[in-house]
Amino acid sequence: MIVEQYFEDYVIGDGRETFGRTITETDFIVHAGHSGDFFPHHMDKEWCATQEIGQRIAHGTLIFSVGIGLTASTINPHAMSYGYDRMRFIRPVHIGDTIRTKTRISEKRDHPKKAEFGFVHEAVEILNQRDEPVLVCDHLYLVRRKNPS
Amino acid sequence: MIVEQYFEDYVIGDGRETFGRTITETDFIVHAGHSGDFFPHHMDKEWCATQEIGQRIAHGTLIFSVGIGLTASTINPHAMSYGYDRMRFIRPVHIGDTIRTKTRISEKRDHPKKAEFGFVHEAVEILNQRDEPVLVCDHLYLVRRKNPS
Amino acid sequence: MIVEQYFEDYVIGDGRETFGRTITETDFIVHAGHSGDFFPHHMDKEWCATQEIGQRIAHGTLIFSVGIGLTASTINPHAMSYGYDRMRFIRPVHIGDTIRTKTRISEKRDHPKKAEFGFVHEAVEILNQRDEPVLVCDHLYLVRRKNPS
Amino acid sequence: MIVEQYFEDYVIGDGRETFGRTITETDFIVHAGHSGDFFPHHMDKEWCATQEIGQRIAHGTLIFSVGIGLTASTINPHAMSYGYDRMRFIRPVHIGDTIRTKTRISEKRDHPKKAEFGFVHEAVEILNQRDEPVLVCDHLYLVRRKNPS
Amino acid sequence: MIVEQYFEDYVIGDGRETFGRTITETDFIVHAGHSGDFFPHHMDKEWCATQEIGQRIAHGTLIFSVGIGLTASTINPHAMSYGYDRMRFIRPVHIGDTIRTKTRISEKRDHPKKAEFGFVHEAVEILNQRDEPVLVCDHLYLVRRKNPS
Amino acid sequence: MIVEQYFEDYVIGDGRETFGRTITETDFIVHAGHSGDFFPHHMDKEWCATQEIGQRIAHGTLIFSVGIGLTASTINPHAMSYGYDRMRFIRPVHIGDTIRTKTRISEKRDHPKKAEFGFVHEAVEILNQRDEPVLVCDHLYLVRRKNPS
Repeated sequence: MIVEQYFEDYVIGDGRETFGRTITETDFIVHAGHSGDFFPHHMDKEWCATQEIGQRIAHGTLIFSVGIGLTASTINPHAMSYGYDRMRFIRPVHIGDTIRTKTRISEKRDHPKKAEFGFVHEAVEILNQRDEPVLVCDHLYLVRRKNPS
Repeated sequence: MIVEQYFEDYVIGDGRETFGRTITETDFIVHAGHSGDFFPHHMDKEWCATQEIGQRIAHGTLIFSVGIGLTASTINPHAMSYGYDRMRFIRPVHIGDTIRTKTRISEKRDHPKKAEFGFVHEAVEILNQRDEPVLVCDHLYLVRRKNPS
Repeated sequence: MIVEQYFEDYVIGDGRETFGRTITETDFIVHAGHSGDFFPHHMDKEWCATQEIGQRIAHGTLIFSVGIGLTASTINPHAMSYGYDRMRFIRPVHIGDTIRTKTRISEKRDHPKKAEFGFVHEAVEILNQRDEPVLVCDHLYLVRRKNPS
Repeated sequence: MIVEQYFEDYVIGDGRETFGRTITETDFIVHAGHSGDFFPHHMDKEWCATQEIGQRIAHGTLIFSVGIGLTASTINPHAMSYGYDRMRFIRPVHIGDTIRTKTRISEKRDHPKKAEFGFVHEAVEILNQRDEPVLVCDHLYLVRRKNPS
Repeated sequence: MIVEQYFEDYVIGDGRETFGRTITETDFIVHAGHSGDFFPHHMDKEWCATQEIGQRIAHGTLIFSVGIGLTASTINPHAMSYGYDRMRFIRPVHIGDTIRTKTRISEKRDHPKKAEFGFVHEAVEILNQRDEPVLVCDHLYLVRRKNPS
Repeated sequence: MIVEQYFEDYVIGDGRETFGRTITETDFIVHAGHSGDFFPHHMDKEWCATQEIGQRIAHGTLIFSVGIGLTASTINPHAMSYGYDRMRFIRPVHIGDTIRTKTRISEKRDHPKKAEFGFVHEAVEILNQRDEPVLVCDHLYLVRRKNPS
């Protein structure tokens, strides 16, 4: 679905929350095969049982890819993804945990050089089934202004 | 392969460079199916042909997952991935581009609260076949000190 | 996104149209591996070149799964998928074709036994990039009535 | 294996039964990623636990694709799949259920316009490990006649 | 399909030939992700272009897995796969090549210790679209005797 | 990582041991879909429960592909894989078993015709979590000599 929003239309504090998705053993295997990271932390349950954490943990890039993917429901043709700041891995995600993503517009600022654009920051929080954050980051969008001054 | 390195062992400026990997149409489809992001920018070549960019572009999370995955060759039991800063999407990656990753130790600093750990920053640059950066970020590691003072 | 609609809320003639999705060689391979159907019509380009159709054709179940999957954007908690009628394969889909799905509410009728439900029929048309139908069917939903008489 | 059969060779009542296949959590994830349908009914075990059905249910298109795929063992060069009628979802399929497919030739009829072809209907029943039907449909084939009258 | 065959039923010289299957770029990516082998010989078209062979080559284990998989059409409950001898990689397989498998019963011999079994050897030849062998091996089966002497 | 080794550099008895990898139900499904082998031995837990072995067993080609894939950590530009001898399936691998691979240089011999090459044999042992061999084979490499006599 396309939802047009100009820089001026973003309101600080506005948020949304996605459906949930259970992170399965399959997602671990798919992500290893996709990324090429077969470290035993993700792939070897026997080795993990000998470590402090006790069980396999999801790749950080898996949680990021799926958590951000959950937010891909509407397209704004005036915004493009510019990057991410302050991505932090707060808690491990194990096989069988269920994650969902909450976002909130946290900041708006001028583009230092291009008058027709502004930056919008969206605070992203990926939560598990106990409402605990597992990964947080700031998503930066470059958004066209309706009325460049 | 396991390579033990304490905080003291990291040297600013040290770097490494990975093998290359061609990003195929398959990677696009796998990443869409893995992340759940089926936006036409990645999936609809007819629509892309009507847009300024002219062809399908890889998901940012795909380039991040594969580019970081390429670096997963040795395990340091004294370091853990803490997060990423300043991730920026510099250039689009299209089907058939080949990426590889260059990293360089860029910063070392004390942990504000835990004397037995320090932070190591690794500047990550994912390059295409023309040696142009397509994604950059800073990877933060929490690393154990050999000699906590 | 959740959009609540009771039987009474459906209006004959209402329709929607999805984003497009290019059907790739990868989708052929994934579908063969998922369904277990490795017939040469889908998998052997040399053999296909000797046949009248000249190239590999997508599995009917692939086009159905992806074409219906494209419509999975909003959830109506009062409706459940009951089945499909008159599914017809109109044209072959080849590697590189781009499909999208148009739907239209085509019929509403009482449930013969359960007063609290009615049937809603949605005419489904999966089109290629030349706006030619490749697969059509009627999707039957069992939908709760707001006011069972 | 190729088994040639003309319209005249089909006998009403003839049937076959496939091997079984356990529907795994992996099949759910693969089908979501293939079709793009990530509805919580299939993907979120926490949400499902709050619903009447209590656990994740397979996509209808998954059961159809795998159940029909199980029948893809012999090729008849004189028959082509024309479509499906009266597909009905009889019972949910959960992770760990095992399905197999029984088919029976149920009807033969002239093609209204083309004398060299006839229609053959195959009643398809996909059963679970308790021999309960989970999906039924009629598969229509367009089959060449040996002796067009 | 189940086809019962005892040791006595195998006839030296008997053979079969499978359908063909085009080896796609997708198969390369799937096999890398499945096996964990991301060597540039299979994954980096730029690097391959600088090598003598000039283009990406399929993993040996890919050709073996798919070529043997093609023969998995009938089940003999009296035979079990015992191992393989003399597997040789004769020619590289590139993206877009089409392979099929020819087998021939090449040897029968007593089991040195178990009177109720014998060994059957099947010579396996995986061919490309030019009928050139790309991989050969001997498949050893342990087969039950109808009449253990 | 590239590690150059000429024929002369290989030392009989030298060995290495890989990380471990848990073989999951996902790997079974991926391998069936990749190879096209959907035999009930690997795919139908109900049928397996009626057999002597009692549960699903991994494809031989799966264990071979993953076990060999685990060794793909360093590239020697002077060696190429020539084939495999005496591959034997020693024990079944079930869902949840964890395998790793041990290799040892077992033999070196002249190439009968090419003075600039020699053959190096590497004895490969794939072990489960109880250190029991599940698959063994000899891997043959064709390796360039530093000093062809």
